Parts: sequence; C-alpha cells; structure tokens
Amino acid sequence: MKNDLLLRALLRQPVERTPVWMMRQAGRYLPEYRATRARAGSFLKLCTTPELACEVTLQPIERYPLDAAILFSDILVIPYALGLGLTFETGEGPRIERPVRSKQDVERLGVPDPETELRYVMDAVRLIRRELQGRVPLIGFAGSPWTVATYMVEGGSSREFSIIKRMMYDEPQTLHALLDLLTKSTCAYLNAQIAAGAQAVMLFDTWGGVLTPAQYRTFSLDYMARIVSGLTREHEGRRVPVILFTKGGGAWLAAMADTGCDALGVDWTTDLRDARAAVADRVALQGNLDPNCLYAKPTRIREEVARVLASYGHGHGHVFNLGHGIHPGVPPEHVAAMIAAVHELSPQYHRDAAG
Amino acid sequence: MKNDLLLRALLRQPVERTPVWMMRQAGRYLPEYRATRARAGSFLKLCTTPELACEVTLQPIERYPLDAAILFSDILVIPYALGLGLTFETGEGPRIERPVRSKQDVERLGVPDPETELRYVMDAVRLIRRELQGRVPLIGFAGSPWTVATYMVEGGSSREFSIIKRMMYDEPQTLHALLDLLTKSTCAYLNAQIAAGAQAVMLFDTWGGVLTPAQYRTFSLDYMARIVSGLTREHEGRRVPVILFTKGGGAWLAAMADTGCDALGVDWTTDLRDARAAVADRVALQGNLDPNCLYAKPTRIREEVARVLASYGHGHGHVFNLGHGIHPGVPPEHVAAMIAAVHELSPQYHRDAAG
Repeated sequence: MKNDLLLRALLRQPVERTPVWMMRQAGRYLPEYRATRARAGSFLKLCTTPELACEVTLQPIERYPLDAAILFSDILVIPYALGLGLTFETGEGPRIERPVRSKQDVERLGVPDPETELRYVMDAVRLIRRELQGRVPLIGFAGSPWTVATYMVEGGSSREFSIIKRMMYDEPQTLHALLDLLTKSTCAYLNAQIAAGAQAVMLFDTWGGVLTPAQYRTFSLDYMARIVSGLTREHEGRRVPVILFTKGGGAWLAAMADTGCDALGVDWTTDLRDARAAVADRVALQGNLDPNCLYAKPTRIREEVARVLASYGHGHGHVFNLGHGIHPGVPPEHVAAMIAAVHELSPQYHRDAAG
Repeated sequence: MKNDLLLRALLRQPVERTPVWMMRQAGRYLPEYRATRARAGSFLKLCTTPELACEVTLQPIERYPLDAAILFSDILVIPYALGLGLTFETGEGPRIERPVRSKQDVERLGVPDPETELRYVMDAVRLIRRELQGRVPLIGFAGSPWTVATYMVEGGSSREFSIIKRMMYDEPQTLHALLDLLTKSTCAYLNAQIAAGAQAVMLFDTWGGVLTPAQYRTFSLDYMARIVSGLTREHEGRRVPVILFTKGGGAWLAAMADTGCDALGVDWTTDLRDARAAVADRVALQGNLDPNCLYAKPTRIREEVARVLASYGHGHGHVFNLGHGIHPGVPPEHVAAMIAAVHELSPQYHRDAAG
C-alpha cells in the first residue's frame, strides 16, 4: 500500500501527518458525481451497479489528495436485501415500502447472504480495490442496527421516531428481535466486505443520539458491541480497524470505547480535547470539523482546521474528518482548501510524538 | 397563591412533592385546543388575540392537576414585531417572509416596545393571571437570541442551518449585531411579561445544540447570560425564577448554571443524576421524560416516571417535565397517567430532604 496513514492512525501508530477523508466524500457536491448519478438514472441504481459504485467511490480520490476511499453504498441496502422495498424520492429521503411493525413482521425476515443477496456490494468492493491499486485504503461500512431499524419501523426518515419508540416501550421484545436480526445481518455483511477487500470498517449510528442514556446502551450500543466482537479483525496480514460513530453521542464516548473498537467518530458538538480525555487514549478519534464550515471562505476554513487539529493536540491517533457528511451545496474548491490545511498544519503535532 | 410548588422547586426550597407541568401543554394533543384553534382560523390569530391565548393557556389547567400554566404564544412573535412577516403553513412550520441576511438588514431593525408592538402578549398575561385566580403560577417565555436568529436568517425552520452558519463564519459581526438586538428585545419583552404578571420565565434555546462548544458559548450562552443579568428578579414581593433550556445542551449544563439563572431544563438524552452532579446543586433541574414515552401504555408511563424521579433522587429542586414539547398525537389520558404517577411517586423523595 502506497499510503497507509489512515490505517496507522486508526490503530494509534505513528504517522507523519494527520490523515484526512470526509464522510459522504463521494457525493452530490461533486459535479462528476452528479453526472454519473444522472447517467445511472437513480440513486439505487448507483448503489447496485458495481461499476458505477466504483466510479463514484474513486471520484474524490482522483480529485483530491485524500487518505482513504469509502465504499459508495447506503446503509439501507440491508432492508432492501430483506425484501422490504426501498425507494429514494428526490428531496424526500428514503422510503421503506413495507415497514416492520409487529412480531410477525420480524419473524418473516431472515439474515441475507452477503455474497448472493448483497453480491453487488461485494463486487463493488473487489472492483474498487483493483482500481485503487493500493493508492489509499478502502473503508467499508454499514448502519448500526438501531439506526437501520428506525428506517425499517418508521418506513423512512423521521423527526420524532414515535413509532419505533412506542415499540421500544410497549413491545421491547419485538424490537430486540429486529435488532438481533440486524446485528447478525450486519456482522455477516461487514465480514463479507472485509473478505472482499475492505481494509477498515465503520458503523454509522446516525440516530443513537435520540435515545436516553439507558435506551442507548440497551438498544444501540450493546448491539454495536456484538458486531465489534463478531468482526474479522485480521485480513491480508493486517489488522482491520473498526470505527464506531454515534451522531450526538458525545456523552457516551467512554462507553463506546469499551466495546473493543479501534476508533470513534466524533461530531462537531464535542471538543476533541474533551473526547480524548474521555476515552483516555484507548481508541483513535475521527473528526470533527463542522460540515457547515465548508461554506465559509477558505481562510476561515483554514483557521477552523487549525482549531480542530489543536483541539486533538500533540500525538497520534487522530483522523481528520468532518463531524458529519459533507453538504451537497459545498463548493469543491473549499474541500481542497480543507485538505491542504490538514496537510500543512498537522505535521507539527506528530513530530517527536510518543504514540 | 394556592399552589406555589413550582416556584419553590425552581428556587430549591422545600416542597411536599415534585411539581409537574409540560412544555407545549396547551397544544394540539387536546381536542379543546383543536376546537379553539379551528375557531381562531390560524395559529397566529390564536397568539395575537389575548382572549384566545388565555383560553388555550387555561385548557390543560382545567383538565389536569398541573402545577403551572405557561403563556400560550410563540418564540417568533419578536421577529413578527420586528416587521419581518410571519406565516405558519400547515405541516411546514413557520416562514419568515423577509429573512435577515446582511448588515443592512440588521441595521434596519429596532428593539420593539413590548407594551405597544407586543401588547397582545402583555394583555394575554394580564388576562391569564386574572382568570387563574392564583390557582397555579404563570410561566412567561421567549426564545433564546440564537434560536430566534436561526429562523430570522434561514427564513424558517432548518435542518442544516447552513445560511446562519455561513454568516457566523464569514460575517460574525453581522450575526453579533443581530444577536445583540435580539438580546435587548428579549430582555425588554420578558421584563414586560414579568411586569404584566408572569411569575417565572423560561428561555427556550431549541437550536443551541447544533453548535460547537466554542460557538455555543459565543453565539448562544453569552447572550442568554446577558438576558439573565438584565431581568427583573423580584416582583409582587416574590423572586421571579429564570429557567434556561438548551435542547441537546447536556454537555454544557455547568456553564449554563454559571449564568446566574435559577433552573435548567434538561432534555431526555441526559440522565438527571449526571445533570445534578454537573450543576452541583447550584440550580434546580426541570425535566426530562422522553416525550415519546407518552405514546406507551399507562403502566409503562408510570415506570418511566418512576425512573425519572429516581434519577433526580432525594431532595428538592426538581420540576417534573418532558424533555421537550408534548407531541400532537399523544392520547390525553396518557398525560393524566403521567401526572398521577408524579403525584403518587414523588413525595417519598421530599420526606426529610435537607433542601
């Protein structure tokens, strides 16, 4: 591998500078992505066609000196493989056609076989690895069981999460059965991604932050911990780092570090200095520039990059990223300014660092 | 006053049981509210007609043994008084017709006089006090400068807050000028509510949680602190407690307590035990049942009320509330179950409590 900065940083090994990638880096802010998306005809077509998924995965790598590629896919391919129906309406977000609302609905579901029912993802991973030619590592990913369950139960995006919360209060055993199925499915799915060539994996818990602390532990974290325990951690003679990210989970970082994962994503509402103190150097940290900062002038972006780097401070174990996905309206040249600032300003934090 | 439990609890004075009220208790979950709302013709008409605002404010008090009334109004009456235009479209949320986007836009604005430009609110407060006849105290309220500014700059509700964040990064002086104007306006507005008869006041910082820690301090908390310092704290021979509430602000409770307010609202994502430890008994705490819990069966609601009470624990200084506003779809009898549980289960936490 020509550039393994990301893998080393995720394992808190020495690096010369802080590696950088962006959540949703293959996305709508790039004109070349919009062109491929238009050619594909639909978002789902983009996800399910390995050649197209590979093409958009590589677009940000061709344009910017990023330190990682991340598989282009969607966390909802698992409910799609479960046969629940999935559509993406413009401006409306995802819609699950047959939501899961009862014990019977859950009992009808079976763990999908990744190499058949999600074969298009594995083919995309293999193709991307071939095309990357070792330039940078490839990150695989999945949604957390709780987060994927919110879409499956609510039938799409939600603001209040009232339907799944009612299930949680009144029929917790139904929700646990669903989360158990998703945990097994996600484990098999991520292990297949690793076998196909993903060199690090990330679990996106986008909606863990809408839970109470007790609910978070019971309905989100415990299932993520089971996944961490069930993952292949060594492949191609290298350790495969696992990253957990709960948006709005700043208060729970120490508990997340206890799962045995290698790194935690941190959103912009928590200072990396506090996050680092909370996890006491047990895991690496990934984040956490405010995604809205990329709308600002490049000189301001540079100042904020400096602030994020200083907030993590001296030493290894930091992967620079946004605190959430990049917004579709960001000017591409602002991304270049952010990456240049990380390249230029981060080496000072790694000189003579103990590890 | 026949029932001053709320005022005593907010000042951490001894009470026999935990007082209880609900954010948005005068609202759409009540059939009598929907009837008045239909009669009024529009939400704004309801806010701007003192007799109607009084009527809906009293509805939950007539129906339930609540320990406080809260003025029926909206945090956007200030931009409305500033002449920016305000409409509420069904299912769409509020729309500000002439958003504030530049230095010139801000310079055009002047602090509204509460007794003329917001007279309908003051008349409502006076009328409600008269009609309440001392049954329970009346809470007045306003939005935090930051939260009101998000609507004024974005032009309505937002998910990403990209326009105001860009202003924050690229033209911070324009945003500070707007927040300064809102701070002066809110101070005058709340002091007028107190003079008209509000016996406690609450600042709703619904969107403080979308900021980084440094931004929160600079663009939200500092302005709320100025308001706290500028408020009338003694009226009708009684202390007027001030409550601050930042949704998603669980990490910043200690800093919020430093403002000199009397109490903090806590959303459901923070455990009251941790919140209490963070503020070290300097302020009272108000919260924090998950609003979605009210969809659950009454027996489950009772269990969750017990959990919230136990989480605060023994001693005074707790006001029971939801962690955010009640949802419109909640069955009214579930609210009765919640209140009954607080009445029944809370006295044990106040027996022999030191204060």
